[in-house]
Amino acid sequence: MNPGMDAFRARLGGFAFGGDYNPEQWDRAVWDEDVELMRRAGVNLVTLGVFAWASLEPEPGRFTFDWLDDAMDLLHRNGISVDLGTPTAAPPVWLSHEHPEVLPVMEDGEVFGFGNRMHYDPTSPVYREHAARITTALASRYRHHPALAMWHIGNEYGPTAYTTAAAAAFRDWLRRRYGDLDALNDAWYTRFWGQRYSDWEQVGPPEVPRSWSNPARRLDFHRFVSDALLECFVMERDIVRSYRADLPVVTNFMRFHRQTDSWRWAAHEDAVALDIYPDPGQAGSHVAAALNFDLMRSLRGEPWLLMEQAAGAVSQWRVNHVKRPGRMRLGSYQAVAHGADSVLFFQWRAGRGGHERFHSAMLPHSGTRSRTWREVEALGRELPRIAAVAGSGSTAEVAVLFDWNAWWGLEVTHGLPRNDFDYPAIVTAHYRPLLEAQHAVDLVSFGSDFGRYRVVVVPNAYLVDDRCTAALEAFVAAGGTLVCSFFSGVVDERNQVRQPAYPGAFRRLIGAYIDEYAPLETSVAVRFADGCVASADWWQDSLHPETATVLATYLDGDLAGRAAVVTNSLGTGRVVYVGTRLDAGALRDTILDAVAAAGVAPVVRDAPPHVEATVRGGFLFLLNHSGTDTATVPATGVDLLTGASVDGAVTLEPLGVAVIETRS
Amino acid sequence: MNPGMDAFRARLGGFAFGGDYNPEQWDRAVWDEDVELMRRAGVNLVTLGVFAWASLEPEPGRFTFDWLDDAMDLLHRNGISVDLGTPTAAPPVWLSHEHPEVLPVMEDGEVFGFGNRMHYDPTSPVYREHAARITTALASRYRHHPALAMWHIGNEYGPTAYTTAAAAAFRDWLRRRYGDLDALNDAWYTRFWGQRYSDWEQVGPPEVPRSWSNPARRLDFHRFVSDALLECFVMERDIVRSYRADLPVVTNFMRFHRQTDSWRWAAHEDAVALDIYPDPGQAGSHVAAALNFDLMRSLRGEPWLLMEQAAGAVSQWRVNHVKRPGRMRLGSYQAVAHGADSVLFFQWRAGRGGHERFHSAMLPHSGTRSRTWREVEALGRELPRIAAVAGSGSTAEVAVLFDWNAWWGLEVTHGLPRNDFDYPAIVTAHYRPLLEAQHAVDLVSFGSDFGRYRVVVVPNAYLVDDRCTAALEAFVAAGGTLVCSFFSGVVDERNQVRQPAYPGAFRRLIGAYIDEYAPLETSVAVRFADGCVASADWWQDSLHPETATVLATYLDGDLAGRAAVVTNSLGTGRVVYVGTRLDAGALRDTILDAVAAAGVAPVVRDAPPHVEATVRGGFLFLLNHSGTDTATVPATGVDLLTGASVDGAVTLEPLGVAVIETRS
Amino acid sequence: MNPGMDAFRARLGGFAFGGDYNPEQWDRAVWDEDVELMRRAGVNLVTLGVFAWASLEPEPGRFTFDWLDDAMDLLHRNGISVDLGTPTAAPPVWLSHEHPEVLPVMEDGEVFGFGNRMHYDPTSPVYREHAARITTALASRYRHHPALAMWHIGNEYGPTAYTTAAAAAFRDWLRRRYGDLDALNDAWYTRFWGQRYSDWEQVGPPEVPRSWSNPARRLDFHRFVSDALLECFVMERDIVRSYRADLPVVTNFMRFHRQTDSWRWAAHEDAVALDIYPDPGQAGSHVAAALNFDLMRSLRGEPWLLMEQAAGAVSQWRVNHVKRPGRMRLGSYQAVAHGADSVLFFQWRAGRGGHERFHSAMLPHSGTRSRTWREVEALGRELPRIAAVAGSGSTAEVAVLFDWNAWWGLEVTHGLPRNDFDYPAIVTAHYRPLLEAQHAVDLVSFGSDFGRYRVVVVPNAYLVDDRCTAALEAFVAAGGTLVCSFFSGVVDERNQVRQPAYPGAFRRLIGAYIDEYAPLETSVAVRFADGCVASADWWQDSLHPETATVLATYLDGDLAGRAAVVTNSLGTGRVVYVGTRLDAGALRDTILDAVAAAGVAPVVRDAPPHVEATVRGGFLFLLNHSGTDTATVPATGVDLLTGASVDGAVTLEPLGVAVIETRS
Repeated sequence: MNPGMDAFRARLGGFAFGGDYNPEQWDRAVWDEDVELMRRAGVNLVTLGVFAWASLEPEPGRFTFDWLDDAMDLLHRNGISVDLGTPTAAPPVWLSHEHPEVLPVMEDGEVFGFGNRMHYDPTSPVYREHAARITTALASRYRHHPALAMWHIGNEYGPTAYTTAAAAAFRDWLRRRYGDLDALNDAWYTRFWGQRYSDWEQVGPPEVPRSWSNPARRLDFHRFVSDALLECFVMERDIVRSYRADLPVVTNFMRFHRQTDSWRWAAHEDAVALDIYPDPGQAGSHVAAALNFDLMRSLRGEPWLLMEQAAGAVSQWRVNHVKRPGRMRLGSYQAVAHGADSVLFFQWRAGRGGHERFHSAMLPHSGTRSRTWREVEALGRELPRIAAVAGSGSTAEVAVLFDWNAWWGLEVTHGLPRNDFDYPAIVTAHYRPLLEAQHAVDLVSFGSDFGRYRVVVVPNAYLVDDRCTAALEAFVAAGGTLVCSFFSGVVDERNQVRQPAYPGAFRRLIGAYIDEYAPLETSVAVRFADGCVASADWWQDSLHPETATVLATYLDGDLAGRAAVVTNSLGTGRVVYVGTRLDAGALRDTILDAVAAAGVAPVVRDAPPHVEATVRGGFLFLLNHSGTDTATVPATGVDLLTGASVDGAVTLEPLGVAVIETRS
Repeated sequence: MNPGMDAFRARLGGFAFGGDYNPEQWDRAVWDEDVELMRRAGVNLVTLGVFAWASLEPEPGRFTFDWLDDAMDLLHRNGISVDLGTPTAAPPVWLSHEHPEVLPVMEDGEVFGFGNRMHYDPTSPVYREHAARITTALASRYRHHPALAMWHIGNEYGPTAYTTAAAAAFRDWLRRRYGDLDALNDAWYTRFWGQRYSDWEQVGPPEVPRSWSNPARRLDFHRFVSDALLECFVMERDIVRSYRADLPVVTNFMRFHRQTDSWRWAAHEDAVALDIYPDPGQAGSHVAAALNFDLMRSLRGEPWLLMEQAAGAVSQWRVNHVKRPGRMRLGSYQAVAHGADSVLFFQWRAGRGGHERFHSAMLPHSGTRSRTWREVEALGRELPRIAAVAGSGSTAEVAVLFDWNAWWGLEVTHGLPRNDFDYPAIVTAHYRPLLEAQHAVDLVSFGSDFGRYRVVVVPNAYLVDDRCTAALEAFVAAGGTLVCSFFSGVVDERNQVRQPAYPGAFRRLIGAYIDEYAPLETSVAVRFADGCVASADWWQDSLHPETATVLATYLDGDLAGRAAVVTNSLGTGRVVYVGTRLDAGALRDTILDAVAAAGVAPVVRDAPPHVEATVRGGFLFLLNHSGTDTATVPATGVDLLTGASVDGAVTLEPLGVAVIETRS
Repeated sequence: MNPGMDAFRARLGGFAFGGDYNPEQWDRAVWDEDVELMRRAGVNLVTLGVFAWASLEPEPGRFTFDWLDDAMDLLHRNGISVDLGTPTAAPPVWLSHEHPEVLPVMEDGEVFGFGNRMHYDPTSPVYREHAARITTALASRYRHHPALAMWHIGNEYGPTAYTTAAAAAFRDWLRRRYGDLDALNDAWYTRFWGQRYSDWEQVGPPEVPRSWSNPARRLDFHRFVSDALLECFVMERDIVRSYRADLPVVTNFMRFHRQTDSWRWAAHEDAVALDIYPDPGQAGSHVAAALNFDLMRSLRGEPWLLMEQAAGAVSQWRVNHVKRPGRMRLGSYQAVAHGADSVLFFQWRAGRGGHERFHSAMLPHSGTRSRTWREVEALGRELPRIAAVAGSGSTAEVAVLFDWNAWWGLEVTHGLPRNDFDYPAIVTAHYRPLLEAQHAVDLVSFGSDFGRYRVVVVPNAYLVDDRCTAALEAFVAAGGTLVCSFFSGVVDERNQVRQPAYPGAFRRLIGAYIDEYAPLETSVAVRFADGCVASADWWQDSLHPETATVLATYLDGDLAGRAAVVTNSLGTGRVVYVGTRLDAGALRDTILDAVAAAGVAPVVRDAPPHVEATVRGGFLFLLNHSGTDTATVPATGVDLLTGASVDGAVTLEPLGVAVIETRS
């Protein structure tokens, strides 16, 4: 139940369609053209003011709301709602000029100066005081404006800070977490290399060179920064809520954003929102996109908002590819298929100058005489055909663990048997076979209720806490299937190796202990019980089955004859543990066999891997990610996009989409 | 008319031959050997004192000119003239020790300390004051010394500075450029990301991390640094002129030196001078050398000075290749062929210590028992045979645009569809076919008089100002031929996208608009009107011809069937626009076809591409850059180097040179 | 004669076996298990307290020795001796918190903060005062403890420091070296680029950017840092000696550690000790290990201590490979074969947390149920079988130069014809053929007595001092054979090119002068006098034989027909000079031919290259580094490891070892 979001959807009559709008960049005359073209394109929501602090408060305490009044009124007159941003991601130059201490310090020790954005230390009291003032001014002025439909707090929360203020805040955070110095010394294992603290004042953020610092200190600092940023969000959220309690308050996450623990954040928002820019030049970027979409839906178990995507190319990379014809539409429906209730872009109109002058827009530099505009306009007209989908949810029987503590453990603490883990890539590799086999998937965290699923997949969970371990044991004992890959369960939440043997947390689950972890330079052969031979590389657990049964055995290498993949029974459930990095086909078969054995059916059968299929409410989404091949998929119902009746099968053109209302 | 340079040439009786000479590094006894060997080698000019500040002013205000008096006298007695340097490129350690604020700050925020050279902030009043003092002392002492033939101000002006002094100077520069803050805010498009300035004191150089800073701010900072360095040059020039007005005053540019806008600088010098170190280990490095030579000649439309080249290897790169036999001679004549009136080296005698102890010299560590010495001596004896060439000029009907603002626009402002443009490489790719087809070429800038040419080639001029646009339109309207490549005319001098459609500035010229700019990952096929099929990669303009005719069409890819190369008529002239990166052969044919159609003839016909041919005065220079193949070239006259009569054809040995006085 | 070490060996009854032990990381209950397992594994020595400063002095001046008393007593009761560390490599956080100036400054100018180890400026008076205090406290308390067998000063001396304190200390060091500023200016060749100093206060460490700084200044700074670290060692050594004069005092060097000139250090120690971690994932890493082992033995011409090695993997690299079965044993015997009197590990028990929680240990995380433990225990039981070897020495007739000044010259001074020299790799390339041909080899430095050898090999000694040059000439004159490779003898100890021709120092030795040094991009062919054709690359000396005879000639390239390898006679000796980088086979043949011609016989004949053979005392060590092939080697005697009689030949399994007591 989310009355704010229900009202939001009702107000928009279905999906939100639109994007970031920056009237402050343009003469007033341009605004009229903007609004007319917005209407032509079916825009019903724009995000205003995200970077407008300097336009709204050109000098400390002097506010200039006239232009925003004007813009809000104009939009309202034209039936366009507003997602109003607090502009606190980009403080005006006067703030850092008068108070240089608000500037963040980067990992290399340099001050991050004015001239970009995100030039604020989230722990700075001065920054927070000024952010609260502009937020209060905005909220009090616009709380009852009829265009106002949603609050957008900050933007892509990201700054880190190794400042004096951050040091003090980190100490407070640690005091709250550990209570006393002895507990901190224990947690950080400071007895190693003689790092014991004898006074709280000695404690601070990791120091330069930070990469090779105490691993528990680094881990806690990442947790702290996420929490410090969250405090900024909550502070502003509470201000706008104090003026108007019924509107949803959101901020925008980013694709695979390591800085902020989205599971902790989501509970403090009214809806989850995502900015995503898959690289059109990279084959398969839709897989990671799908994963991020599923993650967004899973964070609150609700529909979410696609807050920013590109109509075409971005501009910040070495090479910025355009989206070829059809890709923008396909990607938009993909987000919706995975639970998005909006299709929003950064940005409405391409700017003439500034850092992102070549970032694409709904209305490009070349205006309406452009392919991009035509595709945007067509999508804006088409989207209402599936308005009935908005607000509906979906279910999954398979879950994949994606937890920020597991991520930080693998990537930020150094000193592992290998120091080149890429957690998003690892999770994506485990997620891809499920997506390509048309399975519905949720993402879960340490604290999730695993009991809702039949299968839980745990990729390389080097760090897990006791709560997660206990929950997984209960899940399996109650009949669940756990698929887990190598180097999991190794350390506790303090980054300390669980004793007395690897894999401490998961030893009972997998029914084996591990003697040593051995990175591999070359590949080895693995034979499965059914005689199939696959290859493996990168890593070997030296597995010693205790209660487990061997599913696959190494054929060569130092561990020839030893177990590579095992299975174990616990209660009425089952665990499959993969002690190496299998080749993609073998990993796929291992996961899909376990899923099938658990009795989980895909959304559709007999579809090729480039077809994505999801069910949302009573609607079947079919998306063909191939740019060259058509695909025929079993389906029955009515394709809402064409109005055509589908009787047994539907054929998707390359990059084609069908949204089929099934007659259930 | 350049009376100073005429007198200089007259004094030397033709070409200057010699190099940097550092007697302060050697015992007095060595000087006598130096001068004797200089005479053997035909040296008639040496550059003195470039890094001698610490030897001339060992303590603040205490001058020690005795050794320099001695050296000047000795040289004069032996008939060797002096190019006297102001030593201000390398302040003595006492200056930065007593005034640390004179040290520059680098892009990463670190102070550039003492221990190298160029350790001065060009905007520092303290630096300027001390530089003026030593310059004044030098000028007053040596103004009437009979050896003195030229003033050499500073050296390879290069330092950048992100200092407090630079911030103040940058603000002054901006005030002069923009007048008020509103104009600055407009020019920098500070409405994007809320970067509006409300007080001049808030404005400063790009801050750390500088790479992703406001693109107009970065662009202006580059302009400012070039101007600040130029101010240093002008200050010293004015001092030496105030003591002796009839001698030429120069400084030395570097090959493809992005830091200083040579077009702006050249007007303030009496002659252009160049330091150049083509990598002997890199095939084709003579092409970029030729381009730089033509650029030097074009800057003032006059003969110029080859101020520094290596007799053999340099020492600063990872691998420093020697020049194989004949290459030093060939490169020397190449400079002369393109307008140089000197063949000068860094340095006369190889130093025993210091950073560049393995930088080659006319007189190497191994002395006269060396290949290098033998080649230097031979060249010094041979060069006077073409003394008649000195001072003569040349003409060209083809010009290639090479403008610092275009360069900065492409490389320093980030946020482009691609961020890996290499402007010198791009211009070289357009220049190479002209060189290899033996065409005479000038380089031009935004402010040049295009009316002097039949063909102007404009490579990737992303940024052009209105003046240049108007001049190009006038040039074409009057019958000129413009060849222009993709992503040109896009932004104005403030780095703002021209509206309402790409390519704003050149839309009328090319008779087409561009819908979007699309970088390419792979190559595509292009078919020309004559049926030839070429390949293209890296980039595609999505071209929509308006008045233009299609010359070539894409055969595959997203733009299959669409225009790749177009031509347009304007007035009595013609434009060829290349909307992609053609393969080298197709680019060559496109350029040479346009040149031929414009009625431009090459210097010689039927010569292979590895032969360079230029005409200077009444002299035909033929240079064979092949190290293995001979070449026969049509020519008639007398080869001044051999004295042989040439009747119809001359055969060049590998790395061979002929200078033919034609009987016109 | 080394009575301290003799007593040490006698106390242990042969080899030391054990490792670093950190009881302060564990509950007291764990200690009892530790000691019991140490006894099972035959551990007789542990190193205590290396990083225990914070545990021993938790607040300034307050000492907590109780736990260490307890540990020492427990170990003594169990017959285990202690190598007691001074904990000064890792100051407690309170020291740098109260005195931030003790922190070092890194090459990039950043302060190296607390959170790692080695966070001390070795020149800091405050650091030294505190280091002296804890060392005094330890020495006075434990000097007569019955477990105490050795002092271990600091750890892996490594910090550099560009601090204010270091600047002052550097000036003092320079004053002592040069006496006055004129001499310094001469030595640093400050006349180049006008860097002359007029006041000592102007002199300091190389400044940012340091890489391109005065080459003599950089060279001296490296010498100074080595000496400053050595002062720290000597200070602590003198303290512990003042309390107990009869125990050996050591510190631990590292493999190829450029920071500290081990030749200078060794004279101040009672024994040399080495930490070494060859990469098990890199084929041939045993060659560099053997070189380092021979270097350790050569430093003092005595047995040495293997202070740290890994039982399995380390954790600091990108990929940390485990040692496959047998490799740890093989590597341990390899150290012994080359003179080690100990087999010690970092560390006894794997820690649960901290930076190195995945660094392997004698007792791994998985405890005694592990391959690693089984191999450690087996080695501990096996090692006493060769106890008779301990203390014995070995002799060699071939020496290879490995000098820190030569190293620094090639790698830290920049501005060479190539700037990618890798001195350890170069020396290893010259050492490998000798090792693989089963020759005994010593390493030597500039100051060594070459007269003890028949052959001296000098790889790329760009920088040599006059003393070394004279000694080499005397050595050859007296009948010795010198093999020397290109770019040798070029500069003096001040990094100044010797005049009047290359290779200044070695011209008389090689009987040729060199015209120029020419790096090569591609390879060329070389024909030897016997008709064999080899290839060469990377470099060519342009050699002009004077008294030398040509051994090999270039077949192609710019120097076709010219000398590539020459030989020269001097007195009754002979020099072979290699003027290029020969392919590995040709370099091998050239070196081995010279060795054979000098009448030097290998340790064994007819053994394959993967077999290492050394003689130590009356014991022949044979080691098979192949992981796949057996090897049969001629030998006669008794294999101490198996007790088997060997009659004419012994067969080694893959990774096998034999230690044969020969009946001489």
